[in-house]
Amino acid sequence: MEICHLPSRFTFSADKMRKANLFETERFFLDAYCLLPGQEQKAHSHAAEDKVYLVMQGTVAVTVGDETQTLGKGMAVLAPAGASHGVKNESGAAAVVLAWMAPHPSFK
Amino acid sequence: MEICHLPSRFTFSADKMRKANLFETERFFLDAYCLLPGQEQKAHSHAAEDKVYLVMQGTVAVTVGDETQTLGKGMAVLAPAGASHGVKNESGAAAVVLAWMAPHPSFK
Repeated sequence: MEICHLPSRFTFSADKMRKANLFETERFFLDAYCLLPGQEQKAHSHAAEDKVYLVMQGTVAVTVGDETQTLGKGMAVLAPAGASHGVKNESGAAAVVLAWMAPHPSFK
Repeated sequence: MEICHLPSRFTFSADKMRKANLFETERFFLDAYCLLPGQEQKAHSHAAEDKVYLVMQGTVAVTVGDETQTLGKGMAVLAPAGASHGVKNESGAAAVVLAWMAPHPSFK
């Protein structure tokens, strides 16, 4: 059984947002995005993949389309295929966001 | 922007495990499975969909294939397509498990 203890995978890099892959198959991936203050995933889009961001720790500013909202722990947002989306840690503390994407863009 | 505050969706039913859909598209669904003590999702399988269980609250016994493990908050497990899988709350307290599936089995 492939088990993941998520908090043990929440590690950070001073250089940039750290992505830790938790699970992946041809059908999806689940990553943890670990963001120190000021770090971000710049807005981008995927033509045929849906993504969910789920905040596990801290507070982040999430953009989907032309809207930006501040989300705290336990909040999630859908970035449907084609919609520009990004996440930035504008707080003073470390933050972790799960990113689920389906299908996996590397297995087209 | 489609935002979900997860804890507000964690509600329980005395009758059986309660499923609350958080997001769905043709590419995936994300549900919260809310289990009172003794409640379960019986083992079943999906031929062409992968599922991840992620424990958000409490402790549950998760079965994948012929293996069963007790998982606590912050632990996740992959149930790949074709593998039998189920979840049971064998503890004395309420539990919540997120269930992500890709692709969505209702949009074949």
